[in-house]
Order: sequence, then structure tokens, then C-alpha cells
Amino acid sequence: MENILQTDFTILLDLLGTFAFAISGIRLASGKQMDWFGAYIIGLVTAIGGGTLRDLLLDLTPFWILDPKYFLTTGVALIVTLLFKEKLFKLGSTLFMFDTIGLGLFTIVGITKSIDAGLPIWVCIVMGTITGSVGGIIRDILLNEVPLIFRKDIYALSSIAGGGVYFICNYFNLLTGLTEIIAALTVIIVRLIVVKFHIHLPQLQPLDTKKE
Amino acid sequence: MENILQTDFTILLDLLGTFAFAISGIRLASGKQMDWFGAYIIGLVTAIGGGTLRDLLLDLTPFWILDPKYFLTTGVALIVTLLFKEKLFKLGSTLFMFDTIGLGLFTIVGITKSIDAGLPIWVCIVMGTITGSVGGIIRDILLNEVPLIFRKDIYALSSIAGGGVYFICNYFNLLTGLTEIIAALTVIIVRLIVVKFHIHLPQLQPLDTKKE
Amino acid sequence: MENILQTDFTILLDLLGTFAFAISGIRLASGKQMDWFGAYIIGLVTAIGGGTLRDLLLDLTPFWILDPKYFLTTGVALIVTLLFKEKLFKLGSTLFMFDTIGLGLFTIVGITKSIDAGLPIWVCIVMGTITGSVGGIIRDILLNEVPLIFRKDIYALSSIAGGGVYFICNYFNLLTGLTEIIAALTVIIVRLIVVKFHIHLPQLQPLDTKKE
Repeated sequence: MENILQTDFTILLDLLGTFAFAISGIRLASGKQMDWFGAYIIGLVTAIGGGTLRDLLLDLTPFWILDPKYFLTTGVALIVTLLFKEKLFKLGSTLFMFDTIGLGLFTIVGITKSIDAGLPIWVCIVMGTITGSVGGIIRDILLNEVPLIFRKDIYALSSIAGGGVYFICNYFNLLTGLTEIIAALTVIIVRLIVVKFHIHLPQLQPLDTKKE
Repeated sequence: MENILQTDFTILLDLLGTFAFAISGIRLASGKQMDWFGAYIIGLVTAIGGGTLRDLLLDLTPFWILDPKYFLTTGVALIVTLLFKEKLFKLGSTLFMFDTIGLGLFTIVGITKSIDAGLPIWVCIVMGTITGSVGGIIRDILLNEVPLIFRKDIYALSSIAGGGVYFICNYFNLLTGLTEIIAALTVIIVRLIVVKFHIHLPQLQPLDTKKE
Repeated sequence: MENILQTDFTILLDLLGTFAFAISGIRLASGKQMDWFGAYIIGLVTAIGGGTLRDLLLDLTPFWILDPKYFLTTGVALIVTLLFKEKLFKLGSTLFMFDTIGLGLFTIVGITKSIDAGLPIWVCIVMGTITGSVGGIIRDILLNEVPLIFRKDIYALSSIAGGGVYFICNYFNLLTGLTEIIAALTVIIVRLIVVKFHIHLPQLQPLDTKKE
């Protein structure tokens, strides 16, 4: 069975996802009076933070130790930001697409690695979600903000939906490559629908008001 | 020698501790305009964060990967909060008791796992304290607050006291089960006394005032 | 080949570095209304945080589990701070020297451990930088600040420069001990020059201004 993650196409998507995650970090860093190095580190951590926590939890070698391309891609993201910043942010919706594709792909990478580690289905879905979401959480912690993911759109739930679809396809014995494409598309489509129609979960009301 | 951690009673206490830690996270999250998912994650991290760091440091499989009950208990905590919030927080002192019992039990779990890993006494006590305290620290970081534990009551010191008592009992060759009960009770009683009598450590005065 | 890290002299430097890192944590904690215990933990995490993350990433036993001297040195740092605070901070430049020596030595420890783990050069330099810098980042997260390192001086770049010099010396087959001394001195000298002449990287300008 061929693995989607080893084709040229998916290497390209992986780099695009890394690039988009790095840009999202650098962009948010730019509002906080950081120097270039600080912005680079924020971009890097946004891109590799989720996969790093996943690998620590699974007792695997952190993926970026095996391949410098994630550090290099983040460097390219910084240079592109510095050179083309005005043009770049006219491409806001293009960046959003990269980020969403990145989320889809990172989720599938997390699930695949967890299956290889022999973990139960629910842990695989959790690891897919961690891979897609934790980089953004660390980014927000470093920028001294309450993580966006806890307040705004249904970011992590897109990963969970994609994970569910992955194992449904798996149950019906679809080819691995096909399963991965369908699951990644699920993440991407759920996220696009959620953002398009401003769907959000109810807020939790403050529990400690004086009136009670 | 029977192990306190494997009896039905201690499984119940473990779940009560998890439940109370999760509630404490959800409660604090409710003041920060989070949606339900964000509140769930904050609750979850409060409950499992300490044990997860301990397992990473000891190179063990994170405990929650082996058993979905911690994720489920946190889900129950969220549902209970949403359904019964007014009644729940009339039970403030009951929740405080759960939280304190959780601290006691989590401390002992951390110590026991460290003894099994063949570590020296002082490391076991550190791991017990990490198990009991780090979840609350991560909760406060995610909520963008200086961790309460550094400012308010003698939370971590209760764990350390219980750890000390554990190894004193051990030295006198008490049965493991009895040792665990005495040590957990020490954590609980020290915490109750500290809170009851508003005992606190001296504050560190600012060191960089202009006057000096 | 003798290893610089095992001589009495380097054990002394390691302790001085730990002491200086701990003091820097305790000093910053003092501005945040912490109690003594909180200040101790902030000092400890500043001193051991970088090496702990390195060891987790390399799948090694965290170094402080094998030797209580880091916890004890932090305790001494707290006591010294409480007893001599006015005198201590007249020694501001002495503390800065300790901190800089600590950075140099911690960087070399990180590189050496990574070489022993058989990692490629660029990963060794990254690990040296993590060892020297991440403690301060965790300190700032716990104190609820945007990490200084992202905004102020070229802290991490000194580590990277020292790492580069390490592998240049290595390439020319210098003795390990000599290589380590030269690389540590590079870190120290780069940092001294940077601070002395107020060298800093350009800031990243805000990218999301309304004008665009």
C-alpha cells in the first residue's frame, strides 16, 4: 500500500503547510516589537511545535531532527515576509488556504504516526489534533495571549472530524492513500465551511459572578 | 504487598481527583470568554498536565494514552458544569475537598511511579510534586495568568510534606498500602490546615527598586 | 581525549552558571509578588529548563535527576538573594558575567551531549542554543511576559556563533578540550561585544496595519 506522505506531491503540501504555519507565526509576532530572530523562532515553533509534542508523547525522535527542511522553510518564510510583506498580505485568502491545507496534512501525519505506534483509535485522533493545533497554542503562549484556538473558530474540531472520517474509511478497507486524501479533505472542507458561515461553539458563561 | 492504587476505592478517588482538577480548570476558563471546547481543553490539561510531564521526564508512556477514562471524566465535568453550574458552586467547599483529595492522590501516584523507576528519594518527592502541581501551572499559562501556585497558598509544599512522610513510613517498613494512605492524608491535612489558618510563605520583596 | 566537562574547573563553572541563571530568575520573580517558594521554582526552571528540554528531545534522562546539585545551587541562590540582596545587585556586572559564562558553558554542554547522540552538526548547534536559552524563555512565560530573548539582545545568536566555532575547530582536529574552551569563549565574547556596543537585530515592523 502506498503512503501518501512519501510522494512528491505530499512533500510539497507538507512544505506549503510548514510555510503557511510559519507565516502565521511571523505575522502575529510582527505586532509585538520582535526582532527578526524572535520572529523566526515564533514562526518555527508555530510550524514544528505540534509535531514535536506528538513525537515526545509517542517517544519518537522529533521529526525535525531528521530533516533540516522545516528550519529552512521557516527561513524562507521570514525572507519572503520581509521582502514582500505588502503583496503577501494582499494574498490573505491564499495564506488561509495554505494554513488550512497544512492543518489537514499535519492532522493526517499525526494519525499515521500514531497508527504505526500501535495506538488505539481515539489516541490517534488526539495525536492528529495535537499535531495540527499545538504549534498555534505555543505561538500564542510565547506572544503572551490566551490561545486563539480556545476562543475563536472550530480549528481543533476540524482535525477531530478528519480523524473520525479517517477511521471510517479504514473500517471499510479503503486504500491507505485514498483514506488519507479523503480525511485531509474533510479537515479542509470542515474548516472552510466553519469559517465561511461563522459557525462557532457556544461560549462558556462566567461561573463566578457575584450575583450567584 | 497490595498497592493502594489498584483497589476500587482508589480508582474512585483518582476519578474524583481528575474530576475536581478538571472543574477547577473549567471554572477559571469561564472567566476568559472561552467556548465549550476551549474550556474542555483547559479542564483536561489541568487534570492530566502534571502526570504527563512526569511521564515524559521518566521516559514512560503518558498515562492517559493507556486509558480513556481521564478524557471521559473531563467530559463529564464539562457537562456537569453546564447543567448544574449554580448548584455546583454552592458546593464550593465540596469541590475544594475533591481538589485536595486529588492533590493527595496524584502526589502518591507520582511517588509510586518514580520508586518503580528506581529513582532516589528526592527525585520521587519532586515527581510527586510535579504530578500534583504542574497541571494547575499549565492551566494558568494557557489562561495568561502568573501561576497561582507561585503567589497564593502552600500548594506544592503540601505535596512535599506528604512525600517526606511517605519515605519516613517506608523507612520504618510500613506496609505499602498503609504508607500510601498516611502520605496522602498528610498532603490533605497540611493543605486543609494551611488554607484554614491562612498560612503563607513570606513574599519576596522587589529587588530592583530605584531607591537602592 | 579529556573532556572539559569533567574537570573540577568546569564543574565550578557549571555551578556558577546555574547560580547566575537561578539568580536571574529569582530577581525577575521578585517584581511579581511571589512568595519564596515561587521564586525558588522560577529560579530553578531558569537554570534547568533548557537542559531539560534538550534531554527530552534527545530521549536522555533529564540531567538533574542524576545529581541534586542543581536543586541545591538554586537553594543557595535564593538564600544569598534573601540575605544579601542590596549588595548582590550592586554586583550587577558580576552577575552579568556569571550569566554569560553560564550561557557559554551550557551551550557547550548541549553541543557535546548532541555529538554523543550522533546528531548532525546543525542539530548539535540547535541543541546548544536550546540548552542556553530555553530556561529564560520558560522563566518569562511563567512570569507572564513576552520572552526577553525575542526582543532584546542577541542572546541566542551568541550560542549559535559559539556552536559554529566549535565545529570549525572540530574540522581542524583540535583537541576536544581546547575546542570546548574556544567555543565557550566565543559565546562569551560575542555576547560581551553585543551588549557593550548595543548591537541588535532590526525589528520586524507590524504587518497588519490598517493602511495597507
